[in-house]
Amino acid sequence: MKVVLGMGVCYIYGAGEHFTPPEEVGMHDLVIAADGGLMQLKKHGARIDLYVGDLDSIESIPINIDRVILPREKDKTDMMQAALIGAERGFRTFCIFGGTGGRLDHTIGNIQLLAELTNMGYSVFIVGKYDVVTAIRNNEIYFPSHFTGNISIFPHSGDASGVYEEGLKYALNNAHIPGTFNGVSNEFVGVKSRVAVESGMLLVVYERQGGRMHLNISTCAMTAGNQIQKPSG
Amino acid sequence: MKVVLGMGVCYIYGAGEHFTPPEEVGMHDLVIAADGGLMQLKKHGARIDLYVGDLDSIESIPINIDRVILPREKDKTDMMQAALIGAERGFRTFCIFGGTGGRLDHTIGNIQLLAELTNMGYSVFIVGKYDVVTAIRNNEIYFPSHFTGNISIFPHSGDASGVYEEGLKYALNNAHIPGTFNGVSNEFVGVKSRVAVESGMLLVVYERQGGRMHLNISTCAMTAGNQIQKPSG
Repeated sequence: MKVVLGMGVCYIYGAGEHFTPPEEVGMHDLVIAADGGLMQLKKHGARIDLYVGDLDSIESIPINIDRVILPREKDKTDMMQAALIGAERGFRTFCIFGGTGGRLDHTIGNIQLLAELTNMGYSVFIVGKYDVVTAIRNNEIYFPSHFTGNISIFPHSGDASGVYEEGLKYALNNAHIPGTFNGVSNEFVGVKSRVAVESGMLLVVYERQGGRMHLNISTCAMTAGNQIQKPSG
Repeated sequence: MKVVLGMGVCYIYGAGEHFTPPEEVGMHDLVIAADGGLMQLKKHGARIDLYVGDLDSIESIPINIDRVILPREKDKTDMMQAALIGAERGFRTFCIFGGTGGRLDHTIGNIQLLAELTNMGYSVFIVGKYDVVTAIRNNEIYFPSHFTGNISIFPHSGDASGVYEEGLKYALNNAHIPGTFNGVSNEFVGVKSRVAVESGMLLVVYERQGGRMHLNISTCAMTAGNQIQKPSG
């Protein structure tokens, strides 16, 4: 399953160290170049639907590409503005490439963006060289049985409770974890698995599966619209 | 000023992407190789006082090096165990190299470690290829006027209040910021500057200054023992 809530996926490309052109861009998807990401997409001859940026790291924009030019001095990053424009156009699922690696401030900044968009109800996947990071808030995410490698969880924005890790090498069952919890290097073991949090937000970081993105999108679809109702009793 | 509270600096070396041997290791400092960091230190012919790890990523340990061998299956990472051993020996200031770059789960895991050690009252600096990340909790940090480049702040473990950025291109004055706040890309402007938080924790990420570490240690010294008293009225 690729489509979430009848909509496509909004791909956003930054200028970070790792880059993979979108593999399966559909007619209902949107590909945004966030400033320097334009050069990378051009280099790969990839589809570009929209440029969003302040022009501070590119030399030219092809005349046939739609654009939103931002001021250089602004509170929100080019990447965040790109996501908000995608959200305005109705997208609820975002895949961000070129958002990690290189400068650590940019990496952390993009994790903050992930958290902010998750608070707004969107599903966001930041794809790095080795791994994918997503976030769930009062929600759950499933992984199919063929996933391999490492999966790690970390709270974001404070403590988390009602935390579950099921079908992985190490289990958590209704755990309360502090904001500094370090859930690094759990492992997929060949069965369908689930990470859930009843109250709070988790970053979920898992290995890229053979470099393919559509698997990540499919896990994304599994989280959408399945907000956990925290027991009131 | 290099020495904090009469103690030296505990240097911890991991196997992350970027590596700089310690420049000014003194007789009161401690250099710990955390598992795979041993190979890097050996390659550079650097001083190694102690190996801490589970032996899962090294081939041999020189016989004259003290060691703490950890079980492979454990709750705490090699890096965290190394820091706790340093703390047991009386160190309060930690500089971590080889803790970022590469796998994003390890990078985020080490930021969690930074936050945990900061909660315990220690000063910790994670030195990456381009930047240094430290954290302050109910505390402040000063930077000398010769610092150049970018500086970013991000809350950790939830909201932060009484947040100040002074002497930088963009100012914050007694701000309340949510846990998803994205304070990326503020800039040093050639005057002494200060970042402070009265309640909560901030990650502070700033550009490495000419690759030298002793400047970072000197800023570290400025934060130690200066916990901000939150106004009670």
